[in-house]
Amino acid sequence: MEAKCKRLGRIEKRLGKVKIVYEEVDMGLRIGIVGATGAVGLEAIKLLEKSKIVISELRLFASLRSVGKKIGFQGEELTVQQLEDGAFRGLDFVFFSAGSSISAFYAPKAKESGAVVIDNSSFFRMKPEVPLVVPEINSEDLKAHQGIVANPNCTTALLSVALWPIHKAATVQRVIVSTYQAASGAGAKAMLELETQVRHFVQGKPITAEVFPEQIAFNVFSHDSPIADNGYNGEENKVMQELRKIFHLPCLNVCATCIRVPVFRAHCESVVVETERKITAEETRRILSVSPGIEVIDDPKNGDFPTPIKASGRKEVLVGRIREDLSHPRAVAFFLSGDQLLKGAAWNAIQILEALIH
Amino acid sequence: MEAKCKRLGRIEKRLGKVKIVYEEVDMGLRIGIVGATGAVGLEAIKLLEKSKIVISELRLFASLRSVGKKIGFQGEELTVQQLEDGAFRGLDFVFFSAGSSISAFYAPKAKESGAVVIDNSSFFRMKPEVPLVVPEINSEDLKAHQGIVANPNCTTALLSVALWPIHKAATVQRVIVSTYQAASGAGAKAMLELETQVRHFVQGKPITAEVFPEQIAFNVFSHDSPIADNGYNGEENKVMQELRKIFHLPCLNVCATCIRVPVFRAHCESVVVETERKITAEETRRILSVSPGIEVIDDPKNGDFPTPIKASGRKEVLVGRIREDLSHPRAVAFFLSGDQLLKGAAWNAIQILEALIH
Repeated sequence: MEAKCKRLGRIEKRLGKVKIVYEEVDMGLRIGIVGATGAVGLEAIKLLEKSKIVISELRLFASLRSVGKKIGFQGEELTVQQLEDGAFRGLDFVFFSAGSSISAFYAPKAKESGAVVIDNSSFFRMKPEVPLVVPEINSEDLKAHQGIVANPNCTTALLSVALWPIHKAATVQRVIVSTYQAASGAGAKAMLELETQVRHFVQGKPITAEVFPEQIAFNVFSHDSPIADNGYNGEENKVMQELRKIFHLPCLNVCATCIRVPVFRAHCESVVVETERKITAEETRRILSVSPGIEVIDDPKNGDFPTPIKASGRKEVLVGRIREDLSHPRAVAFFLSGDQLLKGAAWNAIQILEALIH
Repeated sequence: MEAKCKRLGRIEKRLGKVKIVYEEVDMGLRIGIVGATGAVGLEAIKLLEKSKIVISELRLFASLRSVGKKIGFQGEELTVQQLEDGAFRGLDFVFFSAGSSISAFYAPKAKESGAVVIDNSSFFRMKPEVPLVVPEINSEDLKAHQGIVANPNCTTALLSVALWPIHKAATVQRVIVSTYQAASGAGAKAMLELETQVRHFVQGKPITAEVFPEQIAFNVFSHDSPIADNGYNGEENKVMQELRKIFHLPCLNVCATCIRVPVFRAHCESVVVETERKITAEETRRILSVSPGIEVIDDPKNGDFPTPIKASGRKEVLVGRIREDLSHPRAVAFFLSGDQLLKGAAWNAIQILEALIH
């Protein structure tokens, strides 16, 4: 952060008070986005444009076939650049959202050049020296960062926001979650594949699957990440492991089943939580309704509950169908929906950036 | 069944052996279908056409706007009739699949006229004197029928087939299920609504919801049945109550979350089962693979697992993703898919008919 302090201008001390004098040209942050033309990258750019963070430079990187593309930002046309030597020079923060291999190779370079990396890939998440942060829960962990901060898996991020207030109130002992995951989790290409398959269906053309291993239109399938030796797929293991790290509960019992559904961009999760102390549905609803990052939508009379359509474009995790699990003496069940591209990715990353600045 | 016995001809007793002499014209059953033009009714007709059951008369009933429609059956064109006095005269069996109010009013009339009713509605399911039957599990219960047999809720039927072998092997103590339910569960109109919404999406027209309370295309929502005082919707309470009745386990712990997804005709269910005795994934897989009504599709190497597309048109319940629940010392998790219109409705009803005949 030394580079940034220099640009923020001189510090005047008078009568024991500190006055920081900003010089106009130096006020903003210099931010890079790797994977700028992807689904998450584009959302990050939109969020930065609307945020109160003052940015003096936004440098966009993408793969070769997107180099030269123009993306509008705060009235300017920014040109997508190639990742090459010196690409990160002078940047304060770099977001990575271009897959694990790109993060593995380039994030250390961004760190070496003096930037703080906020990485959306899974590459650094479980490394002990890298904080894995959902700002509503463990922004304290940011203090120990060593130049790289990891953004959690989308499903984990959404779940963690809803679980944390319950954990604080009644101590979570076991979590059973089944997901309804949108195409966006597999990127812009996957969203386009859903649209293309549906067009072909309407036009009476044969439907082919290229991005996903199965037809996504009018179908539901086990998440397309490889199955590990423990019988769980990559996505499920991420949810189980990352939740433990974010909550600082290395022994938390979690059973996840991750399923893809033909939805464009918001995930849903059906959750059962066993707690140490009995917590009623009413208490759970009350706690969640005053917790950060959550909107409770739970109106049985009007059948108003979370859906991916309601969650799309929203930063909050929507929670509803809150009820006691009648099959256990101390458990509650609920259903959540959250925008995979926002709280599940870009918005959580921007929140990490805000927490790092303040 | 008296009427049927008469038509089956005379019984000759010789030297202590019974010889039943059939007369050709009387060999078949006389079957009625109420709700013949609905999604389930049409499947029942197709299944009867392909079955080995000899039918001498198939009488089709539907609501007024479908009266007069022609439906092909074994080379004949059958005309859809109106439900009126004497409609059931001479019938041996009548299937009902036209909603609870029709069953409530007309099923007793069919019974009075001497037919055995196989009812697909929820109206009689929980009545103590009415067997609720999944033939793979409790066809013994048919012996006590008093003229009406209930076919279970589709989600329950699919789940019960997969759970029963695990229960027999290790005693099920608790079931946690989250569903991915197709439009077909709400009838042919709902399937058409999904198709229409997708067409409008492709054509850039506004999407409106009429059958469902929410947009079904590219969306996921809490099952559209009313929420009861216990916080569970009608579908969830059906799963929980009916499973107990079919299994003869009035205290079985079940927690269901029923969710609608944009799929045409097969349901999926993500299931966690706690058992009295520890059962491994391997043992579960072995038991399920030799159990009736089940096909295990569980190939992690090739990512081959149950999907609604694979299950559509299949009589079996497809089961996969079988693994130990790492969050509990004695629990397994799995994912199933089954055709809502077949094992979830029409096929189970035909199986009940077959069990009643034999």
